[in-house]
Amino acid sequence: MKNKEYQLVIVGYGGMGSYHAKQLLKENKNINVVGTYDVMEERKAASITDGYKAYESLTAVLADDDVDFVLIATPNDVHKEIAIAALNAKKHVICEKPVTIYSEELVEIMQAAKLNDRTFIVHQNRRWDEDFLTIKKVYDEQIIGEVFHIESRVQGANGIPGDWRHLKEFGGGMVLDWGVHLLDQLLFMVDSKITSVYAQLSYVLGDEVDDGFQAFITFENGTTSLVEVGTTNFVQLPRWYTKGTQGTAVIHDWDINGKIVTQNLGENIEAPKPIKAGQGLTKTMAPPSEKAVSTLELPKVEKTMESFYDNVVSVVEGKAEPIVKNDEVLRVLQLIETIFKAAELNEVIKDFDKTRSHV
Amino acid sequence: MKNKEYQLVIVGYGGMGSYHAKQLLKENKNINVVGTYDVMEERKAASITDGYKAYESLTAVLADDDVDFVLIATPNDVHKEIAIAALNAKKHVICEKPVTIYSEELVEIMQAAKLNDRTFIVHQNRRWDEDFLTIKKVYDEQIIGEVFHIESRVQGANGIPGDWRHLKEFGGGMVLDWGVHLLDQLLFMVDSKITSVYAQLSYVLGDEVDDGFQAFITFENGTTSLVEVGTTNFVQLPRWYTKGTQGTAVIHDWDINGKIVTQNLGENIEAPKPIKAGQGLTKTMAPPSEKAVSTLELPKVEKTMESFYDNVVSVVEGKAEPIVKNDEVLRVLQLIETIFKAAELNEVIKDFDKTRSHV
Repeated sequence: MKNKEYQLVIVGYGGMGSYHAKQLLKENKNINVVGTYDVMEERKAASITDGYKAYESLTAVLADDDVDFVLIATPNDVHKEIAIAALNAKKHVICEKPVTIYSEELVEIMQAAKLNDRTFIVHQNRRWDEDFLTIKKVYDEQIIGEVFHIESRVQGANGIPGDWRHLKEFGGGMVLDWGVHLLDQLLFMVDSKITSVYAQLSYVLGDEVDDGFQAFITFENGTTSLVEVGTTNFVQLPRWYTKGTQGTAVIHDWDINGKIVTQNLGENIEAPKPIKAGQGLTKTMAPPSEKAVSTLELPKVEKTMESFYDNVVSVVEGKAEPIVKNDEVLRVLQLIETIFKAAELNEVIKDFDKTRSHV
Repeated sequence: MKNKEYQLVIVGYGGMGSYHAKQLLKENKNINVVGTYDVMEERKAASITDGYKAYESLTAVLADDDVDFVLIATPNDVHKEIAIAALNAKKHVICEKPVTIYSEELVEIMQAAKLNDRTFIVHQNRRWDEDFLTIKKVYDEQIIGEVFHIESRVQGANGIPGDWRHLKEFGGGMVLDWGVHLLDQLLFMVDSKITSVYAQLSYVLGDEVDDGFQAFITFENGTTSLVEVGTTNFVQLPRWYTKGTQGTAVIHDWDINGKIVTQNLGENIEAPKPIKAGQGLTKTMAPPSEKAVSTLELPKVEKTMESFYDNVVSVVEGKAEPIVKNDEVLRVLQLIETIFKAAELNEVIKDFDKTRSHV
């Protein structure tokens, strides 16, 4: 099985673990999955069926000198323990998100990575999502002028899936599940300090963890944002809704349905005509006249970043900086802690970036 | 022209003033528009063209014993002065919204109405809007179970229209213009104390007044809400988005396009299948299986309330309570002041209803 340069073992062979195995087979020519380790007997069996050796213990994985990489796809509460053990055994580590439940745990991992001179990188895969890269292009290239408001939503109707995601001690809940992606994307896009954070969590399903949230985050550069995850939404609002000084860009879904509408300026633009709206007239909310706006297609995204796994290999070989930097991941985790605090206190928390601790 | 029981003079014959004249002609058989008063010569001329006597001064209107009602449709900063003068002259008063810029002014008007034993009623006409009454029916009749989250939005792309609406001293800005309607509707629907208020105002157009806002209001009964007005939105989100314990109801526009999707429970409901979404798999955000949800039409609203003007006549004749109660209007105005304060301080303001002053 050692037909590639690097040998990787997946720890935690559930939904995400087996997804990584398939992705590595398909997308990466340098990393070879040689085995898995999972505490559950049925997953050991699944691993063998899938053609991967099933290690008997984490110790056995770490003692195997042929193993270069450990990929962690377990529940969140044991990420730290496994990561530090793997780094101390001189393995490089790829870790599923959320990297840890508490930011202090990540700090410990980062210190272990430094001490052992090994790469630790978090699988914030949604930085490569086409919907996100499309909005990021709109933002970066000012296609709707300067973007000043961003709404990023994912809304499902299936409640919280799976088992441990319902439990606090395992790092369950939607802020840590989908929130970590949406917040990571937002902070990767908006290069500005966070000035205030307000959030409301939802507990309608009766779980001990949040089943969704709305977070309102403002930035020093004037950008405002609303980040939302829902699991009790039987109709979905658009995935992205962004406002710029010259127009609005909307992406409805992961198939990148959506559009851009921009404002036309000039002397020959007619004022809008008042419309009847309910029991009254409105000029403010009337549709703009025909010549006042243009509708454009969303821009096509070209590949500008290395893929996640290619970047992991480049980082290990000293050829590139990590696209997902640990300090960025730490900032997102600290932001999540701030969101929990803001929601619990029902207060706005200011100066996040001025007060957060750095490594 | 005295072919109806009550004679009314419109003070302020701009867009809203002339709208009232037309509405009264069309909808009400008891109130007769006998004249107008406006400071602008061109509007005096328009009034005469439209067949209404143009009074030379407010004093002349108030001295006319034939006049039963004064309808105020001037800029907001002079509502109080005109209302109190009219009440002191023993006229009934109908006033455009926002009734006053500051809640203390409404308190003075309410005292003058009481002292003179005359009716003062605010034209919160959007309590009769079909989109609102449809959502109110969904809420009242628990068509999607218990509603726990309400989003109410109006989004235009035309900036702030008109002249005085750009200026603070005249009570301009979108919180006072459209916000007063959306907040009035919300409080008319949700019968619960407000526990917290957070808001962000938008000033992207460079006016001294807000060109839009997002307000997050929570209620003692657990309902959360987001009220939003925008004037720089080139694509519109739905007018109403509401979540209940058994489904979601959405109304897109004033033509009542929209739908209800509810959850089906039962043993034969299949779990959703994971979907590829961007660079990952998700079960949480996958569409529910076919049998898991039902799509319903929005309910039809039947007329259950007297029309605004019919109610005005009933109130004057002692036959009905006002549908738009002055204390409700006062509460909305105090909420608006709280929204301004929350936005200015960038803080959550708690216990609004416990601390607000009553008349």
